[in-house]
Amino acid sequence: MNEDTIAARMREIFDCAPFVRWLGMEVLGAGEGWCETLLLPREELRQQNGFLHAGVVSTMADHTAGASAGTVLPPGISPLTAEYKINLLRPALGDRFRCRADVLKPGKTLVIAESSVYAITGDTEKLIAKALVTLAAVKVDLLPPA
Amino acid sequence: MNEDTIAARMREIFDCAPFVRWLGMEVLGAGEGWCETLLLPREELRQQNGFLHAGVVSTMADHTAGASAGTVLPPGISPLTAEYKINLLRPALGDRFRCRADVLKPGKTLVIAESSVYAITGDTEKLIAKALVTLAAVKVDLLPPA
Amino acid sequence: MNEDTIAARMREIFDCAPFVRWLGMEVLGAGEGWCETLLLPREELRQQNGFLHAGVVSTMADHTAGASAGTVLPPGISPLTAEYKINLLRPALGDRFRCRADVLKPGKTLVIAESSVYAITGDTEKLIAKALVTLAAVKVDLLPPA
Amino acid sequence: MNEDTIAARMREIFDCAPFVRWLGMEVLGAGEGWCETLLLPREELRQQNGFLHAGVVSTMADHTAGASAGTVLPPGISPLTAEYKINLLRPALGDRFRCRADVLKPGKTLVIAESSVYAITGDTEKLIAKALVTLAAVKVDLLPPA
Repeated sequence: MNEDTIAARMREIFDCAPFVRWLGMEVLGAGEGWCETLLLPREELRQQNGFLHAGVVSTMADHTAGASAGTVLPPGISPLTAEYKINLLRPALGDRFRCRADVLKPGKTLVIAESSVYAITGDTEKLIAKALVTLAAVKVDLLPPA
Repeated sequence: MNEDTIAARMREIFDCAPFVRWLGMEVLGAGEGWCETLLLPREELRQQNGFLHAGVVSTMADHTAGASAGTVLPPGISPLTAEYKINLLRPALGDRFRCRADVLKPGKTLVIAESSVYAITGDTEKLIAKALVTLAAVKVDLLPPA
Repeated sequence: MNEDTIAARMREIFDCAPFVRWLGMEVLGAGEGWCETLLLPREELRQQNGFLHAGVVSTMADHTAGASAGTVLPPGISPLTAEYKINLLRPALGDRFRCRADVLKPGKTLVIAESSVYAITGDTEKLIAKALVTLAAVKVDLLPPA
Repeated sequence: MNEDTIAARMREIFDCAPFVRWLGMEVLGAGEGWCETLLLPREELRQQNGFLHAGVVSTMADHTAGASAGTVLPPGISPLTAEYKINLLRPALGDRFRCRADVLKPGKTLVIAESSVYAITGDTEKLIAKALVTLAAVKVDLLPPA
């Protein structure tokens, strides 16, 4: 997959997903088998204790994994999350959050990826969550209308 | 835990979490070892294919599991998600979404719960996701300031 | 799938798996979408603390889930575990262990099942583990030779 | 933890676990926060399709993760698996199997580790499974008698 195709994939996966747009996730970079994203925290994304809500951290981990899977699937085939597991390792507190996802196993029907989410405060970056994600490769015309 | 204590717990867990308030999750009911919640879908909560985003379904599953754990923990001790795994079983399409969480194992340091998320369309209810959630029991003063 | 076909499936899934035979897992019953198995503990199956080893409990949960998936797949198509998650809820101590697996979602490419493992001591049965299992439906001739 | 203490921990975790001894898992090395193990396949450890059974691969991933957790826990405190999730990525076929586990997050009550299992055939090593494991830190005298 060349750079233009990957860029088009990223636009498809990030710009067209209303929830992800609302959260404010941005693509930092992507290549064959990987993707990196950034999220800036704000009040509405927090848990009662001030942490970024586990659901927001999970969405970063899941969606970035989906994007990494998108870079190894042919045109017309989209990744759809079948399941994932996430460990929330440390408090989700920071100035900004970075997620890195890598494909562990590409495939025609299933793609497996892992995601790491980091909280950045000043110059310090801490691993706050780790996820394993299983994505099904689905023909776009099998998806319901948007 | 009596009804008033459970009601106070539910207010603490739902009303004070900005992300959950923004999503619009409501408590349908709660008792010792269980909790049920409702969510109405809207445009910002969707994936590019029109489904409720997996991150939103996951937040329902995780937060409702946390609330069920809250009903079996003593005052001053709060549930904090350590990890969870979710299977997204069917398209997250419906008029409204219901989540039911039950404690599988209470404990002093860990509480394990399972959550089922259902999509409701008219009179039909379908199981669309199932999660297993591990929650740590944390002293409230160990949490960072809100 | 009729009773004879299910019985043939169970023989294929249990009798031909050397590890499962060695563990001593037996089929208690099976029908469309479910399977139940039994295991008697013995010294070699234990952890250093005397519990049945988590790996043995996991094998029960995984293999019984696979068998439940086998009851909803057509002839010539076999279940292959893609991933699972298991929570070990209570000490794996008992006279015998029972596992119940149910299909949550049948499918042409993926089958999702859940398994519950119980420890039985005299008349008392306790839930000791719960698992969520994702199985890929694989053409038998895609499998490597036994 | 010095080398002698780690060596003593490894003996405690591997030599005293009957199931692990029966499987034939050996320690290749260990240090603060990590452990590596080796397993040679044999007939009794196989699935009906000739693969190493998922339960055996899981036991490697779980037990090696437990051992890595053991290297960051004080004397008198042992790791006990609370839950794990494993993705079986490729066929478990090879001359021998290597597992590497690393602690992602040490802690007083919970230790989180990840494990990678590789199949080795001649000079070629392939990642066949990846796991995320949550271990509870338990006082040894809280464990039931062996």
